[in-house]
Amino acid sequence: MTTRANDDLTGDEQQEVLAELGEFLRIPSISTLSEHRPDMERAATWVAEFLRRAGLDHARVIPTNGHPLVYADWLHAPDQPTILIYGHYDVQPPDPLDAWQSPPFEPTVRDGNLYARGAADDKGQVFIHMKTVARLLRDGGTLPVNVRFLIEGEEETSGKSIEEYVQAHADELGCDAVLISDSPMFAPGQPTIGVGLRGALFTEVTVTTGRHDVHSGLYGGAAPNAIHALCRIIDALIDAEGRITIPGYYDQVRMPSDAERAQWAALPFDETAYREQEIGASALVGEAGFPVLERTWARPTLDVNGIWGGFTGEGSKAIIPAQARAKISMRLVPDQDPNQVLAAFTRYVEQLCPAGASVTVRALTIGAPVLVDPNTPIMQAASEALRAVFGKPAVYTRMGGSIPIVSLFMERLHAPTVMLGFGLPDDNLHAPNEKMHLANIYDGIRATTLFLRRLHRRA
Amino acid sequence: MTTRANDDLTGDEQQEVLAELGEFLRIPSISTLSEHRPDMERAATWVAEFLRRAGLDHARVIPTNGHPLVYADWLHAPDQPTILIYGHYDVQPPDPLDAWQSPPFEPTVRDGNLYARGAADDKGQVFIHMKTVARLLRDGGTLPVNVRFLIEGEEETSGKSIEEYVQAHADELGCDAVLISDSPMFAPGQPTIGVGLRGALFTEVTVTTGRHDVHSGLYGGAAPNAIHALCRIIDALIDAEGRITIPGYYDQVRMPSDAERAQWAALPFDETAYREQEIGASALVGEAGFPVLERTWARPTLDVNGIWGGFTGEGSKAIIPAQARAKISMRLVPDQDPNQVLAAFTRYVEQLCPAGASVTVRALTIGAPVLVDPNTPIMQAASEALRAVFGKPAVYTRMGGSIPIVSLFMERLHAPTVMLGFGLPDDNLHAPNEKMHLANIYDGIRATTLFLRRLHRRA
Repeated sequence: MTTRANDDLTGDEQQEVLAELGEFLRIPSISTLSEHRPDMERAATWVAEFLRRAGLDHARVIPTNGHPLVYADWLHAPDQPTILIYGHYDVQPPDPLDAWQSPPFEPTVRDGNLYARGAADDKGQVFIHMKTVARLLRDGGTLPVNVRFLIEGEEETSGKSIEEYVQAHADELGCDAVLISDSPMFAPGQPTIGVGLRGALFTEVTVTTGRHDVHSGLYGGAAPNAIHALCRIIDALIDAEGRITIPGYYDQVRMPSDAERAQWAALPFDETAYREQEIGASALVGEAGFPVLERTWARPTLDVNGIWGGFTGEGSKAIIPAQARAKISMRLVPDQDPNQVLAAFTRYVEQLCPAGASVTVRALTIGAPVLVDPNTPIMQAASEALRAVFGKPAVYTRMGGSIPIVSLFMERLHAPTVMLGFGLPDDNLHAPNEKMHLANIYDGIRATTLFLRRLHRRA
Repeated sequence: MTTRANDDLTGDEQQEVLAELGEFLRIPSISTLSEHRPDMERAATWVAEFLRRAGLDHARVIPTNGHPLVYADWLHAPDQPTILIYGHYDVQPPDPLDAWQSPPFEPTVRDGNLYARGAADDKGQVFIHMKTVARLLRDGGTLPVNVRFLIEGEEETSGKSIEEYVQAHADELGCDAVLISDSPMFAPGQPTIGVGLRGALFTEVTVTTGRHDVHSGLYGGAAPNAIHALCRIIDALIDAEGRITIPGYYDQVRMPSDAERAQWAALPFDETAYREQEIGASALVGEAGFPVLERTWARPTLDVNGIWGGFTGEGSKAIIPAQARAKISMRLVPDQDPNQVLAAFTRYVEQLCPAGASVTVRALTIGAPVLVDPNTPIMQAASEALRAVFGKPAVYTRMGGSIPIVSLFMERLHAPTVMLGFGLPDDNLHAPNEKMHLANIYDGIRATTLFLRRLHRRA
C-alpha cells in the first residue's frame, strides 16, 4: 500500500487482531449442546474481560437461566447519541467434523481467510466492534459517542435470556440506535446495509404409531409406520410448484415495493455461481414465479432441518418404527405473525397425519420478521462510512436469516437497528469450513470507526 | 399335572434348561454391530461346545469372511433319514434400551416367560433342538435318525456366509429334510407348521442435494433440501389405498388358493387384540381389499426401517441438509423375483427423485420367498408329533417374515423344510422385552423328540 488512511490498521495491529480473535474462536461455545456449558461461561468471561481492559465501565457477565449475557458501557459523552452494540458469542455445532479442512476450533489462516466455527457468525463480526472501541479508547482516551455493549450466548438457540433481560431492563438500556454486524455483504467489495430480516419459527414434530417397534416381516402390511406417516406429512407441506400448503400461510405476506424489486434485480447476482459454488446443487428449488433474491429475502419458506427414526446403524434391522421425529422450521416475512403461523402449522400437521398415527408439534424458537427505514440520519451516517472505506455506495438488502432480538429492540428500546454486514456470501455459516475474510475484519474496524465519528454531533 | 408322558421334562431338567439357555442368552451376539464381533465368536463356541458335550461328532466352529458357522453331526443310523437342523445364534440390536423392563442380556423369568434378546428369535428355539438331541443321547446313547446341525450367526444381517458355505459344501450336507424353529405358533396352544415365508429385500437409499449443508435462513427458498427430496420419494412409494406404486410390483404375485384363504379366514384371529395388544396402534394400515392375514402372509409390502439426515441433536440448527438416508425394505411373496424387484425399485426411486437431488440405492440383503408342500410323509410326521404334544391338529400357516436360507436349502439340498414354530405372536421379536414362553420350550423339546422318533423307519 502506497497511501494509507489514518484509520488503517498497522501490521502489528493486524497481528494483534488475529491473536485476540484467535483466542475467542478457540473457545467451543456451542450453545445448543449442554456439554459445552463451561465453554459458554469461558466465552462470556473472555468478552467481558476484553471490554474491561479496553476501558469500558460496568463490564460484567450477567447470569441468566440459560447462557450468560455480557454488558459493558462507556457513557462519558453526555450530549452525544448512545449506540447499543449487539452481537453473540455462541456458535453452531461444527458437525460433520470430517468435512472440515482444519479443525473448527483451531483458527487457521488460508488464502487471506480466517477459518473457524464462528469466524463470521458472529465472533469475528462482533469482535470488529469490540476492537474498534478498544482502539479509539487506546488512541484518544475517549469515544465520539456513548456506547453500550450487550452480547448474548443464545442466538443460535432460544435467545430467551436476552429477550427476558431486554423486557425487564429496557429502561437501563436507553439508546438512539442499535448496531449489529451479523450478516454478509452482498458481494466482495460491495458495502451492504441490511434493512430486512426474516422471522424464524423452529419446531420439533413427533409422530407416534405404536407403543414400540414391531418386526417388519411379521407385521409388514398391517402395522402403521411412523416414518411413512412423517414423510407423508412433510411431503404434503410443499406442493409441486414449491408453494407451502399451510392454509393461509401467504395471506399476511407484504410484497416488496416495485422500487425495492427493481434495485434487487439490478444487483450483480450470478445464479449459476450461487447454485454451483455456494450450494453445490444441480438445481435450485423454491416458489415458482419469484427470482432467487425475492424467494430468499421476501418470501416465507419451510425447511426440514433434521429427521430421525427407526434403525440407523450399520446393516439392516427388520423393524417398523413406532416413532419418528423431524425438526421443521419456517422463515417468515413481514407481516406474518409467528404465533399465528405456529397455530396454523400445528392444526395443518394434525390434519395431514394419516390414520394409525398421532402427531405433536413443539415450538423451539419464535422470532418476528423485521424491516428498517433506510431514510434516517443514522442510516445515512452508516452509508457514508461504508462508502468512504469501500469506495462505493452501500446497497440496501434484506437477509433471509433471522436475528430475533432485532424486533425486540425496535419494540422495547424504540431504536432503529443498523445492520452493517462484513461477512461474505460464501462464508459457510452453519456449515463446515466457516470462514471470515481477513480484509473485511480490518475494513470493518475502519468503517465502524468512521460510523461512530459521523454520529458525533458537533455543537 | 396329574398325568405325565414319558418325554415330560422333570423339574431338574427344566432348571437345567433355564441355566443352559440363560448362559447362551447372556452373550450379546448382535451380528449387525461390528463391536460385538468377539461376542459372535463366544456364542458360536458356546453352541459347538454344547453339541460336542452332548455327544455329537465333528462339532466345530467354521470361520467365514463374516461371523462363524457352527456344524456338528450324528450319523450312526445308516438306514435312517438325515435331518439337517438349522438355526441362528445371532440376535437383533436391543435398542431402545430404556424400553426394556429387565436388561436384554440378563435373562429374567416373569409370569412363566423368559425375557431376553434372542429368547424367541432364535436362541430359545434353536436350543429346543440342541437340548432334544442332547437328552436323547444322554438317555439312550443313540438317536432315532441321523442329524446334522448347521447354525449361523448372520441371520439378522446379510446371511452371506452360510449361503456361500451351502453353495460350496452342498455335497457334504446331504439330508432328507431341514428342521427349523424360528417362527411363532399361530396362537397359544395352537400347534403350527409354517409352509410359507416372505422374501426380503433390504436397501439403503441415499439422497444428496449439495456438497454440504447450508444455512436455512440465508438459502431457504432456493437450496434443495435432501430430507424433503427423500420424504417425497418415500411418500410416493405407497398410495392412499396402501398399494405399493413400484411399476410392475404385483405382476408376479401368486394369489393363495381359495382353500388356503378359507382356512386362514377360519383361524381364531382377533384383529382388535392384534392391533391394540401386539402393535399398540390406533389403526391398521396396508393394501385395501385384503384381510390382515393375507396382507401379512401373502401380499408383498414395503417399509422404511430407519431414516436419518440433518441435525438431530438437542435444540435446533438452522441448516438445509445436503444428504439424507433411509433404510427401505420390501417383503416379497411367490413368485416375485427379488433381483427383478430390486431393479424396478432402483429405477423407480431414480424417477421419483426431484430436481436438485440425486439418489443411490444399495442392496443390503436379498432373499427369495418360499412355499412348502404340506402333503408329504415328513410333514405328516411333524403334524402328528405336534398333535400328540399339544392335543389338537396343527394348522398350516405362512409367515410374514423371511428366512432367506430356506430357499437355498430347497434349491441346493433338494430337501423340504419343516418349520415348527414354538414362539408366540406377542414375543416382541426385534423389539424391547423379547420373550419366550417357558412352557413352549419344554413342549417344544417333547414335540421335537416325538418328531424325530416318528421319522425313524421301522424295518
